[in-house]
Amino acid sequence: MKGLGVGLIGSGFMGKCHAIAWNAVGTAFPDVERPRLVHLGDADADLAARRAREFGFARGSGDWHAVVEDPEVDVVSVTAPNQFHAEMTLAALKAGKHVWCEKPMATSLADAEMMAKAARESDRIAALGYNYIQSPAIRHIGRLLDQGAIGEPNHLRIEMDEDFMADPETPFGWKHASTSGYGALDDFAVHPLSLISVLFGRVGRVICDMTKPYADRAAGDGTRRAVETYDTASTLLRLENGMAATLLVNRSAWGRKGRIAVQIFGSKGSILFDQERFNEFQLYTTSDSPAEQGYRTVLIGPAHEPYGTFVPAPGHGLGFNDLKTIECRELVARIGGDMAARLIGFEAGLEIERTVHAMARSFDEGRWIGLR
Amino acid sequence: MKGLGVGLIGSGFMGKCHAIAWNAVGTAFPDVERPRLVHLGDADADLAARRAREFGFARGSGDWHAVVEDPEVDVVSVTAPNQFHAEMTLAALKAGKHVWCEKPMATSLADAEMMAKAARESDRIAALGYNYIQSPAIRHIGRLLDQGAIGEPNHLRIEMDEDFMADPETPFGWKHASTSGYGALDDFAVHPLSLISVLFGRVGRVICDMTKPYADRAAGDGTRRAVETYDTASTLLRLENGMAATLLVNRSAWGRKGRIAVQIFGSKGSILFDQERFNEFQLYTTSDSPAEQGYRTVLIGPAHEPYGTFVPAPGHGLGFNDLKTIECRELVARIGGDMAARLIGFEAGLEIERTVHAMARSFDEGRWIGLR
Amino acid sequence: MKGLGVGLIGSGFMGKCHAIAWNAVGTAFPDVERPRLVHLGDADADLAARRAREFGFARGSGDWHAVVEDPEVDVVSVTAPNQFHAEMTLAALKAGKHVWCEKPMATSLADAEMMAKAARESDRIAALGYNYIQSPAIRHIGRLLDQGAIGEPNHLRIEMDEDFMADPETPFGWKHASTSGYGALDDFAVHPLSLISVLFGRVGRVICDMTKPYADRAAGDGTRRAVETYDTASTLLRLENGMAATLLVNRSAWGRKGRIAVQIFGSKGSILFDQERFNEFQLYTTSDSPAEQGYRTVLIGPAHEPYGTFVPAPGHGLGFNDLKTIECRELVARIGGDMAARLIGFEAGLEIERTVHAMARSFDEGRWIGLR
Amino acid sequence: MKGLGVGLIGSGFMGKCHAIAWNAVGTAFPDVERPRLVHLGDADADLAARRAREFGFARGSGDWHAVVEDPEVDVVSVTAPNQFHAEMTLAALKAGKHVWCEKPMATSLADAEMMAKAARESDRIAALGYNYIQSPAIRHIGRLLDQGAIGEPNHLRIEMDEDFMADPETPFGWKHASTSGYGALDDFAVHPLSLISVLFGRVGRVICDMTKPYADRAAGDGTRRAVETYDTASTLLRLENGMAATLLVNRSAWGRKGRIAVQIFGSKGSILFDQERFNEFQLYTTSDSPAEQGYRTVLIGPAHEPYGTFVPAPGHGLGFNDLKTIECRELVARIGGDMAARLIGFEAGLEIERTVHAMARSFDEGRWIGLR
Repeated sequence: MKGLGVGLIGSGFMGKCHAIAWNAVGTAFPDVERPRLVHLGDADADLAARRAREFGFARGSGDWHAVVEDPEVDVVSVTAPNQFHAEMTLAALKAGKHVWCEKPMATSLADAEMMAKAARESDRIAALGYNYIQSPAIRHIGRLLDQGAIGEPNHLRIEMDEDFMADPETPFGWKHASTSGYGALDDFAVHPLSLISVLFGRVGRVICDMTKPYADRAAGDGTRRAVETYDTASTLLRLENGMAATLLVNRSAWGRKGRIAVQIFGSKGSILFDQERFNEFQLYTTSDSPAEQGYRTVLIGPAHEPYGTFVPAPGHGLGFNDLKTIECRELVARIGGDMAARLIGFEAGLEIERTVHAMARSFDEGRWIGLR
Repeated sequence: MKGLGVGLIGSGFMGKCHAIAWNAVGTAFPDVERPRLVHLGDADADLAARRAREFGFARGSGDWHAVVEDPEVDVVSVTAPNQFHAEMTLAALKAGKHVWCEKPMATSLADAEMMAKAARESDRIAALGYNYIQSPAIRHIGRLLDQGAIGEPNHLRIEMDEDFMADPETPFGWKHASTSGYGALDDFAVHPLSLISVLFGRVGRVICDMTKPYADRAAGDGTRRAVETYDTASTLLRLENGMAATLLVNRSAWGRKGRIAVQIFGSKGSILFDQERFNEFQLYTTSDSPAEQGYRTVLIGPAHEPYGTFVPAPGHGLGFNDLKTIECRELVARIGGDMAARLIGFEAGLEIERTVHAMARSFDEGRWIGLR
Repeated sequence: MKGLGVGLIGSGFMGKCHAIAWNAVGTAFPDVERPRLVHLGDADADLAARRAREFGFARGSGDWHAVVEDPEVDVVSVTAPNQFHAEMTLAALKAGKHVWCEKPMATSLADAEMMAKAARESDRIAALGYNYIQSPAIRHIGRLLDQGAIGEPNHLRIEMDEDFMADPETPFGWKHASTSGYGALDDFAVHPLSLISVLFGRVGRVICDMTKPYADRAAGDGTRRAVETYDTASTLLRLENGMAATLLVNRSAWGRKGRIAVQIFGSKGSILFDQERFNEFQLYTTSDSPAEQGYRTVLIGPAHEPYGTFVPAPGHGLGFNDLKTIECRELVARIGGDMAARLIGFEAGLEIERTVHAMARSFDEGRWIGLR
Repeated sequence: MKGLGVGLIGSGFMGKCHAIAWNAVGTAFPDVERPRLVHLGDADADLAARRAREFGFARGSGDWHAVVEDPEVDVVSVTAPNQFHAEMTLAALKAGKHVWCEKPMATSLADAEMMAKAARESDRIAALGYNYIQSPAIRHIGRLLDQGAIGEPNHLRIEMDEDFMADPETPFGWKHASTSGYGALDDFAVHPLSLISVLFGRVGRVICDMTKPYADRAAGDGTRRAVETYDTASTLLRLENGMAATLLVNRSAWGRKGRIAVQIFGSKGSILFDQERFNEFQLYTTSDSPAEQGYRTVLIGPAHEPYGTFVPAPGHGLGFNDLKTIECRELVARIGGDMAARLIGFEAGLEIERTVHAMARSFDEGRWIGLR
């Protein structure tokens, strides 16, 4: 049996991340047939050829259509800028390829709906790049919830913060224009929503407040230009299961680099997690004797699948790129027919997009908005 | 010069806390004349006599009026249950005594307004027991904000959580009846609001969501009784200065014991604080060189007033009761005419009560409520 | 019954600390008769009178003999400089007073032996001010060890570090002269040895290395003077029970303010503690299920005696001075005949002094030294 | 130009780790020509063929000599059990191959000396697998020391602890027999020594104490067998530069999974690091203003080379295997003539082995042992 033929569109941050995953997946996971790296597409032919050589792809093209139409390609990684996601995935699905598209799904809800429809009507796998759901800690937290380790969950808080927009001296850029979307909602809120999706299910209703820490920024021409997107978004939520939750995101939060802080409270304990230290989680359980109850800091190890396939000794740590390799393994397994593989497909991805748009609307209208 | 004559009403948790403070204040603070512990009142004469002996008061009475009317008493600590605050403080002010009343101010907004009016019309000092504003860390954070250490603050998050209501097996008690108030709003939200009051000023508008983690609890008679108060309250706020903030409280949060987690983001850095480790705070500033920027964990020491009057060596730690001793010193100083003393007076306390009631109303009506 | 009559010699750092404890002990501990603060002695009569007024003592004297000989005094707190400990405690014991002497016991082993002999031959209580053994966390750790919570302990590491000598620009002072003792051994090592004493018993043999981070310091006269004491001392130990241990101390450790980090490893778990956060400890136990094993951070609360007498809610925190109040309670209880009271008496204190001298000798001779 | 031809001997834990690195290095590092994975050798031909397919090697052999003699192989990864290191590396060097050998170098000092001699006499690169020196944090700490960020370093403490030997119920295994070496010294002490080697230089003298937490263990036949190796080793050191240091290792330390805790104290600050959270380090510097001095927790990011080649956003985290990929890049660069590449060569590796043997001797003889 020969491995999957891989096409990759884009070779920037996430393109390289996909490339590292495609190179590693067969080595790290003995249960996955080593894929063949076939075709890399990027903006121009020279760059594509250079990246193909670096990343181990057989050939490169300056036109992404060549990747999508390559008969040796079975699955296409779409890592190009967000506004191209719809066109590329639709073309790939039409050409009979499986699709692995980076988040967010699309720049409009209409596009996302079209993509979900195309995926639904095909017999191909269409998955989104929500890698944070893949970490051994998050997977284990899911198991703990299923086992009732903290009883019945009754409250949830998630924060996601970074500081790449925090400097008021940073000039006006494309992410400050409303054409890029709402701001922190698109950049960040979708990630916590992917965690809610796999751990707790669907969102019922929301009310959101958003702010612009800096009203304007230096434009290139010596003037100031009004910022059109929101760096912070704070949302109260009710999940469909009735649980109350809060989702707070901020891309101007000085000091935060990759924080996704999760607090889950239940009737018999609670669980804490922070993506900045994603090789550990904290568990508090009332089954410990009263004078010794406290948050246990559990270091991830072979007891937390699939850590052990990377390192057999506990506490040695996975990296961000390893999460993508796990995601890649899940994709290959799903393509191979494993329905238990853990992925955010286009249907679940569409639900996340709908929630984000509802948040924005609740801010505009100053009131709670129901998802359905 | 002889010291202030002190009366104390109540000798439970907070009564003992006041007693420890009145015993310590003269010893710890050389700038304060040692007070005279005159008269302790409690529910019955025997208990009052016993506590007076233990706590070092000259005499005890089973009727609080005797304390209020004792001519040797200059200032009255009111630590009786919340429903008595109004009657006692009004009587004390009328008798010409200064008042130090535990929070919350009263069980109704009308009572709180009456108390504030009485204080305004007297020439006595009337202060509330908001001790968390007194910690050296919070004081220093205030100075850092004033100095622009993190530039212009633009976002605030506060959480206050404990777990004394977290056990679903705890039977129905008075705090589960609506006669006790709203629930977590009264128990907890007032504390973060006291911090907002001293650090950032007044609240402009709010929208709150509240939940009951457990719908009912065992009643004494073998039946279940519906819980009427809310253990969680999650609020989006806008301050009068325009800043957005979130205030999340939960008294059913397993694992949290005395958490008041504060995150303040500004244009040049950020500050973190948690009351569970109130002898430290964290500062992130962009004035550090880029490759060495990170949250500094600053241990409180003599550089953070008034720590040094308790211990001259840094990092040795103050305790919860020391915060009350500091508050006591501020009260004595204010009575002595020091207008710079740091206290939540009845006027600021009333503003806190109004905010709490606005939160509750925003929940009832499902919309933003303005404070004015 | 009237309370103990208290005399206090010295009103500096530790004198004030004793004064705070004597003021608080009756209020905090209902089982202790409130002491009477009788007589304070300090270097001159004016200072003594002022401090007596501040600290609540009935009278003050410029001559410590007046305190020791005061017939109303039952117990004498000795907090004067180390070189006076022997003379003062011997006089107090001879006058039939109980003694509470600050650590270290004396400046020479001969003095310490004389003090222990005097105490042994008297019927008075003679205790040393080793307050770190009193914290609820350390007490609870002792109980956990006794209960076998971590199985059979087999390895111990203790570090004690501060940074008050870390600045090379600090001029030569009395603590840099060999007349003050060895250096970090006297200042610090005695504290970890007090913990070893209560948790594990006696030391068997030691080998120590010591260093001077700064060879010389500025003398007042513009010249440099060679430093004669050692700021670091690193020791390998074997306890009498066979356990191996390490004891590392450093008073020039920039960044450390009051660190006493303890690591105890056993056959079924381990325990961590750090005095800089002494309101918590960490427990790892193999009785937790494998995928959820981790260090639990236990916040001190009413389950950890005697925290609850200070604050009934967990996680609110005790302070450094509260440890002294607990020590004071133990002293009063022991004077009252309670043999279970937890104290480092003069006999155990002498053993600590002997260990320190053995460490110094092992450094001088470059070899292991047995204690007996 | 075609990439290096790679041979790999062994496909267990470290063999897979090398394989992941060889697969990733070209993708992650654009400055490195993508290597060709040529030949994998393992214990039998079937296993070797299977692993070759999984790991992406062109062919596999059941005899390691075939790998060493393969003319397409330029560099050989030696990851077979320690007792084979000498024979394999000598054969590879003799065949004109570069060598990348896992630590420890060999099972006897004589073998290590022979290996170092062979490397010295060849014109090939011979490097050891000390991956912890490669982390961005450790590299940055090295730069900070060079820049004087903490002034003149004067004290060092390193601990390395795991718990894979902590369970007394684990039966007697080959690591409990003296034929495997000394115990924790071989397993662990060599790693901290590699850090000392790159950060501070050579060790001058040592005195070590070692213990066996469990005297005997269950043998297969129902009897108990005496343990011959030492799970703990505690060492006092003096470096050649005069600095005092401590090196404490324990492989029976319940709760520790991959701890390498480093504390470096200097005249103007200090640095902390722990491998269990190797994506961060802590810096304390006196150049911060006094009231805001504290340990800064710096999250690793693009400012800390070569993190940025893996992820362009800070705080997202590298994993254990990424350290090996960095090491691999350094090896390829050194083979390509880059003398600045960071590696522990056979000469430095031999010095580490000598230090370990000196430690063992100092324990046997109960006295300080000089390295030269």
